Amino acid sequence: MNDLTINLEIHSSIPLYEQIYKYIKNEIQNGGLPFGERLPSTRKLAKYLQVSRTTVDMAYEQLVSEGYIEALPYKGYFVCELDGLYRLMPVQNQVKRFREEPKEIFTYDFSPNGIDLDSFPQNAWRRLSKTILQEENRKLFQLGDPQGEYELRLMLAQYLRQARGVETSPEQLVIGAGNDFLLLLLCSMFGTGQKIAMESPTYKKAYELFGNLSNELRVIEMDESGMRIDRLSDTDAQIAYVMPSHQFPLGTVMPVKRRMQLLEWAAGAADRYIIEDDYDSEFRYKGRPIPALQGYDRNDRVIYIGTFSRSIAPAIRVSYMVLPRRMLSLYQSRGRSISCTVSRVDQMLIAAFLNEGYYERHLNKMRAVYKGRHDVLLEALRPLRSICEIRGEHAGVHILLTFTNGMHEEEAVRLAAKQEVKVYGLSGYFVGAAGLRREDTVILGYANLSEAEIRSAVARLKTAWMPLNE
Amino acid sequence: MNDLTINLEIHSSIPLYEQIYKYIKNEIQNGGLPFGERLPSTRKLAKYLQVSRTTVDMAYEQLVSEGYIEALPYKGYFVCELDGLYRLMPVQNQVKRFREEPKEIFTYDFSPNGIDLDSFPQNAWRRLSKTILQEENRKLFQLGDPQGEYELRLMLAQYLRQARGVETSPEQLVIGAGNDFLLLLLCSMFGTGQKIAMESPTYKKAYELFGNLSNELRVIEMDESGMRIDRLSDTDAQIAYVMPSHQFPLGTVMPVKRRMQLLEWAAGAADRYIIEDDYDSEFRYKGRPIPALQGYDRNDRVIYIGTFSRSIAPAIRVSYMVLPRRMLSLYQSRGRSISCTVSRVDQMLIAAFLNEGYYERHLNKMRAVYKGRHDVLLEALRPLRSICEIRGEHAGVHILLTFTNGMHEEEAVRLAAKQEVKVYGLSGYFVGAAGLRREDTVILGYANLSEAEIRSAVARLKTAWMPLNE
Repeated sequence: MNDLTINLEIHSSIPLYEQIYKYIKNEIQNGGLPFGERLPSTRKLAKYLQVSRTTVDMAYEQLVSEGYIEALPYKGYFVCELDGLYRLMPVQNQVKRFREEPKEIFTYDFSPNGIDLDSFPQNAWRRLSKTILQEENRKLFQLGDPQGEYELRLMLAQYLRQARGVETSPEQLVIGAGNDFLLLLLCSMFGTGQKIAMESPTYKKAYELFGNLSNELRVIEMDESGMRIDRLSDTDAQIAYVMPSHQFPLGTVMPVKRRMQLLEWAAGAADRYIIEDDYDSEFRYKGRPIPALQGYDRNDRVIYIGTFSRSIAPAIRVSYMVLPRRMLSLYQSRGRSISCTVSRVDQMLIAAFLNEGYYERHLNKMRAVYKGRHDVLLEALRPLRSICEIRGEHAGVHILLTFTNGMHEEEAVRLAAKQEVKVYGLSGYFVGAAGLRREDTVILGYANLSEAEIRSAVARLKTAWMPLNE
Repeated sequence: MNDLTINLEIHSSIPLYEQIYKYIKNEIQNGGLPFGERLPSTRKLAKYLQVSRTTVDMAYEQLVSEGYIEALPYKGYFVCELDGLYRLMPVQNQVKRFREEPKEIFTYDFSPNGIDLDSFPQNAWRRLSKTILQEENRKLFQLGDPQGEYELRLMLAQYLRQARGVETSPEQLVIGAGNDFLLLLLCSMFGTGQKIAMESPTYKKAYELFGNLSNELRVIEMDESGMRIDRLSDTDAQIAYVMPSHQFPLGTVMPVKRRMQLLEWAAGAADRYIIEDDYDSEFRYKGRPIPALQGYDRNDRVIYIGTFSRSIAPAIRVSYMVLPRRMLSLYQSRGRSISCTVSRVDQMLIAAFLNEGYYERHLNKMRAVYKGRHDVLLEALRPLRSICEIRGEHAGVHILLTFTNGMHEEEAVRLAAKQEVKVYGLSGYFVGAAGLRREDTVILGYANLSEAEIRSAVARLKTAWMPLNE
């Protein structure tokens, strides 16, 4: 029998029982203690190591629970067969928490997908997270409802009614990990081969996703009110995908009259639906937000999709979808078999964030921050108004500049890049046949730049685009 | 000017500045302080309320940051226009954290989908979660890599090599919120109309999911080694979906020879693939686990899918997929546009769980727990061996009982239910045309029952199925 000469480090931060556990585990793994070997009794080992018997008991218990040794009544502890036991080595090289980002060559980036994370309420988030994990609730780790936690759906129904005029019961709500997932889920519910109308330019990922799943896409012309309903009616489309609150990327806010026409179109045939992507609806700088299209719908035709990615943080991965009542049986038969993609902990976290008033505060704070940046940007752009028009400035966190002096998009992007300012051409967002393209417009997202950065960046744009005025 | 008679509660747990903030916010929302009204100076209000000026400053700052009031230089604080400000009421009725579960009429439930959560390392999980959220890392809340965090993929590659013999680089790994999502992603990469071979009985959700996305399904007969490759070769299938480690629900472990035949089939034509769902591979009770099919593959044809749902907890929602190298360009063009469905916090949590040795310990512990239950169940079932055969007992956390005394599945389920024991008929898992059905087999999952519960439940099954032997 091995005497187990363990060099215990009394002053180590590793508890003594853990040191004993690790030593014996290592001995077993290395063959120092072979299969069938009897271990010293806890009494004997405790005496030998001059530690309490409880300490040795704890070490042995841990080894038993992990299958390294077994206790035979009246006989003692014996080394088990190692076959089938896991032995995993940690990754050897010290790994960077995050991968090296590609070297940034731009000083200022007007990314339309940025959001301000300095205002993210880290402390509240941490506190709520801690509270939820501390409730000794095993249910948190059991598989939840495929639709999402009932409590979160109840909170969301209330929030959506108050903030967006959306009429929904928790039964109509489906929680999912991002808009892309919810669109995949919808596709699998509808089945492939749907005729889907989209605006151009649009959210290109949705266009690709629908196309990859063998749907037929109909690109519909837009005017200053959004998707043209006369053109939509000319097609065989059954589903229209729109962003009425703040069209991406044009920033168009669909007026009420056009919304009514769209709802009328949907009611005009048995199986027509509208997918309302309520993109960037949270931030509007003039007057009250226009309620969502869904709230005006009297014919149960609108599928409403919203996300916390932009209003809280992109990495949160929580989106939500309101199904019309008529689609609930379809969801039961073809959607419900797909398990919920958001962890229960995250769902309870968002529910608490909503119900304890943090979300209200956060939205108002972000609105104030973004409004400040929005106003600074518009003010700073004033000297450039002789060469461009501004659009899409009433909501969201980006605007469009359309050049009136004949400058082309590529040239504008290139000249800005020379000044280390990144702006985005609109043409990248067009889908379907060419001809609809406008190549005289760039996008400026301002969510990720401070007011001072915006001023400096616009000064550089002026140098880039109006060199003669220097 | 309103004198702001605020009844401060000095001994409240709510900080004084918060009480002042809330009072003024309420006054503004209720119209007591209308748009344009000037607020008392911080000095004056502090004196009036007999609090420090810092306290009032903090309240005013909070109100400014949320857009309720604004500070005009040299003039003071004024109430802002409320239009567009969010005002969200909490849900009125006290809501139960979790919805009432349907009343359990079974005393013992041999669910094949159960897992033991008593052994879930809640403390370690909480501690890691706290550590990760405490690192002041804004990047955690920015949108991450669509494939998943590089660090997690690195850990996973190492784990899969050591534990499952899977050969992969982090570049081939894709993280997703559950197997269902990963299968949706695969469908959207391959495009619809694929000819997919499946076993019967099988994981029915996958069968439905493939079908909903307009793939053509070919149901392949099984024998005691798993999917029959001769039958597979007779079809036009391009993709074979298999669970070689522990077929669900049959529990068949595919022998190496059959694995080689399957790999040979895949190599036999240009665009053939195998989807290896490594279901329940973590727990094997006799000898070393058989390495995954993927590890034997020399032709780059295996798509490997695994999950932490069963080895950690179902609500964790983290699965992973290893793509063959030849599919990486397809992923770039058709898969990468779908954002990762797992939050960065959860990804870092799992990475730490793996790298700091918790996963190894947890797996060994669970293996010991499940082996104990497995042995007790087989022992308890001994008296029933005169009426049934046991299958699928070498791995996983469920077994199959096939009646040899002519008893039918429905009868067995019904008789067990009379004793308040829930067992599951195998026929529910068959897919495709009838004829393959066996109706003399029930499934007993034991992950969710203690050893004592298993003994009592089996005693009841004996009463139910062998009444004459009482």
